[in-house]
Amino acid sequence: MDIVVHRADVILWVLNFLGLVAFAFSGAIAALKRKTDIVGMIILSLVASICGGITRDILIGDLPPEIMHSYLPLIIALSTGLITFFFSNHIHKYAYPIDFFDAIGLGLFTVVGADKALAFGIDPIWSIGLGSVTGVGGGVIRDVLLARVPNILRKEIYFTPAILGASIVVIGKSLFAIESSLFMILGAIICTGVRLFTLRYGWHMPRR
Amino acid sequence: MDIVVHRADVILWVLNFLGLVAFAFSGAIAALKRKTDIVGMIILSLVASICGGITRDILIGDLPPEIMHSYLPLIIALSTGLITFFFSNHIHKYAYPIDFFDAIGLGLFTVVGADKALAFGIDPIWSIGLGSVTGVGGGVIRDVLLARVPNILRKEIYFTPAILGASIVVIGKSLFAIESSLFMILGAIICTGVRLFTLRYGWHMPRR
Amino acid sequence: MDIVVHRADVILWVLNFLGLVAFAFSGAIAALKRKTDIVGMIILSLVASICGGITRDILIGDLPPEIMHSYLPLIIALSTGLITFFFSNHIHKYAYPIDFFDAIGLGLFTVVGADKALAFGIDPIWSIGLGSVTGVGGGVIRDVLLARVPNILRKEIYFTPAILGASIVVIGKSLFAIESSLFMILGAIICTGVRLFTLRYGWHMPRR
Repeated sequence: MDIVVHRADVILWVLNFLGLVAFAFSGAIAALKRKTDIVGMIILSLVASICGGITRDILIGDLPPEIMHSYLPLIIALSTGLITFFFSNHIHKYAYPIDFFDAIGLGLFTVVGADKALAFGIDPIWSIGLGSVTGVGGGVIRDVLLARVPNILRKEIYFTPAILGASIVVIGKSLFAIESSLFMILGAIICTGVRLFTLRYGWHMPRR
Repeated sequence: MDIVVHRADVILWVLNFLGLVAFAFSGAIAALKRKTDIVGMIILSLVASICGGITRDILIGDLPPEIMHSYLPLIIALSTGLITFFFSNHIHKYAYPIDFFDAIGLGLFTVVGADKALAFGIDPIWSIGLGSVTGVGGGVIRDVLLARVPNILRKEIYFTPAILGASIVVIGKSLFAIESSLFMILGAIICTGVRLFTLRYGWHMPRR
Repeated sequence: MDIVVHRADVILWVLNFLGLVAFAFSGAIAALKRKTDIVGMIILSLVASICGGITRDILIGDLPPEIMHSYLPLIIALSTGLITFFFSNHIHKYAYPIDFFDAIGLGLFTVVGADKALAFGIDPIWSIGLGSVTGVGGGVIRDVLLARVPNILRKEIYFTPAILGASIVVIGKSLFAIESSLFMILGAIICTGVRLFTLRYGWHMPRR
């Protein structure tokens, strides 16, 4: 896989791979709920899993996007769409599966995105922003295509965990330059954990 | 026209021109149905006709986008918006005119997009994807601006013909490197034909 | 501030700053009306104020976008979101505040965008288009995220003043090459003025 060769980092590859799978399922299940056909499922799987990374790569000027150097996202989206289609009865049983997979993808992509932004010389504060964009971007475009208001503007806590996870990577990498994998794993766990915890207990940010 | 000079290919220019006109009409008619004003018609004509190519050019890193080297898209969108505005009674008579023009634009832009992606050194499989994005992108953004779920996620067969048309160009160009115009024309006809045929007979892809 | 150093133009910096503030308020108030939480307010402030400039910079290939060389947009969006949250009762009193701030941002960003497009060697006619995109882009993406049809397609006059303001900058800069600030201020005033005037008196463009 090209991604491994490019970044010489097995942990990064694994985080990226898991993020692709998680968001691909979030897309396929969103498509299932909207009763699109099998092609729509595959498209939404692909959109949800690659659009965050593509948005980040456009903004940092790394074109064509990194994701287009590998067939992995295509294979994952295709498999996920087909699995969701043929096992839709089983998938229906789980409560909130979109939110669950989405939360895992959110944590993984946020830390990968913040790490890449730093590696491309983006300023630390904007790297936190670009990490968050990598994490939330796929879900936002998935929701816009389904003509619904995206997660980041709904009542649950969604963007804040991404800021938190990205900040851990950026602060960790700035203070202890050599080994960033630890902070990436920590950031992903905290981001996904905070998202799932606040979702489970119905916590909200203040509103007017 | 700059586009001709750039690509030294009259057939490519003609396909591109016809695609611009077809999508411009799809946009103007969509605006007419939503009762936007005359400026909205011109805007949606332009959006529908240029956003697919612009998305492709952003992804392959060809910036500013090719389309901005010519006034042609502006002239076409302006003319199409005005024609649709002043002859709206006649245009209303035809059944499904958005879908008809959209199908023609889909075929033309898909093959042009796949050809350009290959020319920019994009891998064949991703070139099929980028060709399809060129074909569907204008319609997707047209529909997102009108806050409706885009064609690619609705029940008719839409994305599959684009994959088919782009694949013909990519396979043809890979096997017979010198002359790709034949495969582009063939791909455009098959893509548009399959789209219109499945639309006419109400064929669908399987759904849950 | 980096922006000042980059462009060596205090007037440009001031116009840009005021545009950021105006659009940030338009986003925060749109979020307030949709009852998002405080984070949603800050996100929509940021989206409305930076997405026009980011779209322009992607299209002219100036990546990472200019806006990411400064913390100013982040500080403004954060402050605006917080102010709108804590003083929401006072803000509610004013009629049409989104449209008011939006009109000011529209004028300011349109002229700044047209000026930058010209400076990057974009053809005059497309520079008018890119100026307009800079002006309307933030509002369009703000509205798409809220799943509502954007300003440019609604019944009021919105895109036309942007074309007008951008044209004044482009014509002025082409005819009198040295000093463009005067035309930028003039263009911004006319764009914002025409927008507010037509809004106040309920003027519309013709429709079918």
